[in-house]
Amino acid sequence: MESKPYVVQINGNGLPSQGVNGKGVNGKRVNGHGAHHVSVKGAVKPKTQKQRWDVRPSEMSLNTVNPIRAIVDGMKLTPNPDKAMIALSIGDPTVFGNLPTDDSVLQAMKDAIDTHTFNGYAPSVGYQRSREAVANFYSCPQAPLEAKDVILTSGCSQAIDLAISVLCNPGDNILVPCPGFSLYKTLAVSLGIQVKLYNLLPEKSWEIDLQHLESLVDDRTACVIVNNPSNPCGSVYSKEHLQGILSVASRHRIPILADEIYGDMVFPGCPSHSLASLSSDVPVLACGGLAKRWLVPGWRLGWILIHDRNNIFGSEIRQGLVKLSQRILGACTIVQGALESILNNTPKSFYHRTISFLKSNSELCFSELSTVPGLTPIMPSGAMYLMVGIDMEHFPGFQNDVDFTESLVTEQSVFCLPASAFEYPNYFRIVVTVPEKMMVEACARIREFCQRHYRPSSQDSNELDQ
Amino acid sequence: MESKPYVVQINGNGLPSQGVNGKGVNGKRVNGHGAHHVSVKGAVKPKTQKQRWDVRPSEMSLNTVNPIRAIVDGMKLTPNPDKAMIALSIGDPTVFGNLPTDDSVLQAMKDAIDTHTFNGYAPSVGYQRSREAVANFYSCPQAPLEAKDVILTSGCSQAIDLAISVLCNPGDNILVPCPGFSLYKTLAVSLGIQVKLYNLLPEKSWEIDLQHLESLVDDRTACVIVNNPSNPCGSVYSKEHLQGILSVASRHRIPILADEIYGDMVFPGCPSHSLASLSSDVPVLACGGLAKRWLVPGWRLGWILIHDRNNIFGSEIRQGLVKLSQRILGACTIVQGALESILNNTPKSFYHRTISFLKSNSELCFSELSTVPGLTPIMPSGAMYLMVGIDMEHFPGFQNDVDFTESLVTEQSVFCLPASAFEYPNYFRIVVTVPEKMMVEACARIREFCQRHYRPSSQDSNELDQ
Repeated sequence: MESKPYVVQINGNGLPSQGVNGKGVNGKRVNGHGAHHVSVKGAVKPKTQKQRWDVRPSEMSLNTVNPIRAIVDGMKLTPNPDKAMIALSIGDPTVFGNLPTDDSVLQAMKDAIDTHTFNGYAPSVGYQRSREAVANFYSCPQAPLEAKDVILTSGCSQAIDLAISVLCNPGDNILVPCPGFSLYKTLAVSLGIQVKLYNLLPEKSWEIDLQHLESLVDDRTACVIVNNPSNPCGSVYSKEHLQGILSVASRHRIPILADEIYGDMVFPGCPSHSLASLSSDVPVLACGGLAKRWLVPGWRLGWILIHDRNNIFGSEIRQGLVKLSQRILGACTIVQGALESILNNTPKSFYHRTISFLKSNSELCFSELSTVPGLTPIMPSGAMYLMVGIDMEHFPGFQNDVDFTESLVTEQSVFCLPASAFEYPNYFRIVVTVPEKMMVEACARIREFCQRHYRPSSQDSNELDQ
Repeated sequence: MESKPYVVQINGNGLPSQGVNGKGVNGKRVNGHGAHHVSVKGAVKPKTQKQRWDVRPSEMSLNTVNPIRAIVDGMKLTPNPDKAMIALSIGDPTVFGNLPTDDSVLQAMKDAIDTHTFNGYAPSVGYQRSREAVANFYSCPQAPLEAKDVILTSGCSQAIDLAISVLCNPGDNILVPCPGFSLYKTLAVSLGIQVKLYNLLPEKSWEIDLQHLESLVDDRTACVIVNNPSNPCGSVYSKEHLQGILSVASRHRIPILADEIYGDMVFPGCPSHSLASLSSDVPVLACGGLAKRWLVPGWRLGWILIHDRNNIFGSEIRQGLVKLSQRILGACTIVQGALESILNNTPKSFYHRTISFLKSNSELCFSELSTVPGLTPIMPSGAMYLMVGIDMEHFPGFQNDVDFTESLVTEQSVFCLPASAFEYPNYFRIVVTVPEKMMVEACARIREFCQRHYRPSSQDSNELDQ
């Protein structure tokens, strides 16, 4: 009986993987269930059994914190029953139906379905042809791209997740904008990576305080995240400023994760440079996707563009990204199959229409709120957000931005996200994708609210004369 | 100038988040770029700068190992130029075009696109209505489900990832079938979780060696993964065997991750019980998705069904899953939007057609290979795989299953995945989704190959008489 195939197969070749993985175990043949099989010495030794169930969530899940949810869930959001609710808080351009995606984008999806060829598994980094389409779309002479430089992901969130995961170890730190999109921190902290916040300067249209940025660098700094155009600021950096950021990164040999999900969503006349197009040495992982520019955030099609002209990432970082992409695979194959057509056939007029709407709504909101006592809106240059400073000294009835925006809901049924959600208290963020009429009404209500609660300070009025 | 709003806004309220996160920092006003702004004391202190670039991939990426790729990429796969290649290795039922999804499934996708309402963000756990559809589809009196018990994910891989991530901490261990689907190990090891392999018994149609399973339990065992029906075995467990597994888990108070992606893909006459339907106390996270039963693995629509009738997971594990789902969000919204229709409107005949094809192809393959010298095929009862034992004693020309299957490609242009990829040497796996003609041809070639290399052993022929 020793030659029965299953005995040979299970125990015959001495490969350690057949025992307890990673432990030296004495394989021992015992007779159980009427057949020979491998078991482990001590199998009959009684174990200390738990007397009661005690299943606890992992540290990682406990450390996965979404600051927006943490703050919003703690707010008492009871709208004024006499006024219809207006949510200026939702970073989803599709919710009001006024910014539909282009028909050609939807048609590309249906065409992909009709081919019957995009139902199986794609490679974990995406179809070659879809990667090529992204490479061609974003390639430029200063920052050429090939298919091998593109990794398709399940939304830009997974792109950021993979980029952080490949560059950072637990105990490392990353430098993250403040105010900034909360996902960076959510992802990093859940992986045991420390987050250091660098300041953006509202008085300089949210440019980075480069001196502050540089001061945060230490031996464990694994990457700098640059979000341009920015959520929540709507800022767009000049060529010179991007070069300044690259200088800091170059000086300290730190790669950059460029979150460019709002790339090319820039108002006419404003600069529009990808970070990688200006880099001479700093390697860049640029994250993007269909979500915002094509107005389909739910479709979860994102990408990483690997810019590494000096071969600093080399094959190792690329291989690391490929390996990580195999954990859960990437984007839906129907969207991948539609991607080439979406990138190549969406009419330019569609992009222009979106941008000019966002610009005009931003201008409307900015000009309305500029004359509201106690508020300081900052005019954006792109993306779909506008930040508004609250001069808390003039609103003694409220403790902070959370308190302020909560009362704005109670009295005026207008909800703006308090910027504490972006680690930036005493501002709030307005999403400028809402229909124009709604924006006008919301600004009027915000004015009424502020006029009611504004208290001039005598000290301040003196200083205004200086 | 002290009252300029931006100074108050950045530095005015003493919230620590404006400084270096988590560190006590002396905020100090310095004059830079012609404006007041917050910086960090010591900002001008020169740092030790790295003299050269040295960007290394993270430990996590290095620890993310795909055993199938590791083995296949190391093989010399050079088909015989005189014979067309037949790949029996690809676990994707769509590759040969003989198993298309149902037209109603494709129509449901187009309908979802036409509503124009599934383009925005869904909740990170999925649309309520889609979760409800899954709950209704899988609910049964013994294991009732509501929408709150369902979490939609980006494919079953993400479902497994979230389930492991919420139950296990680094240093914990999970018990995993051997042979078994390699993803469990890939995910766990990348998260610092140890994997212990429990043996399946080929001579008992791949039932679990329960004694071996139980012997592996220790204080750090965080969950048992049960894959039924099984990849790579095609086995389907009886009610009694599933109850036996539950007994072990119950005795040691260990939750079960039931990978049921092949659920209901069971040949007529074979048992078909979900693990949760038999559990009286053991909490179960059951993972599944559209991939296999609806033949659309690329669409990446998976789910976790939370079975916790005794409130052992409680709200904490549920909340942990919700938190983890917010890291990258889940499935494509178009597929989510189509889900209700897919589950409710796919004709029963579609499922039957798939199953009867898989059964007949399995029988064909099994009966062909049963009479091939030196091979021991094990007849499956479901899923889409069939394992074949190689009696290596009779093939002295080959060292192991990898060597054997490599030569099968060289000589016969037939590729079967060596089961070393499933930590189970000296077997190979056949995917039974290939067209029947191809299966017949492949079996004939395997026979020719084995006949050529088979060497009878005198020792063995004696034992055969025993």
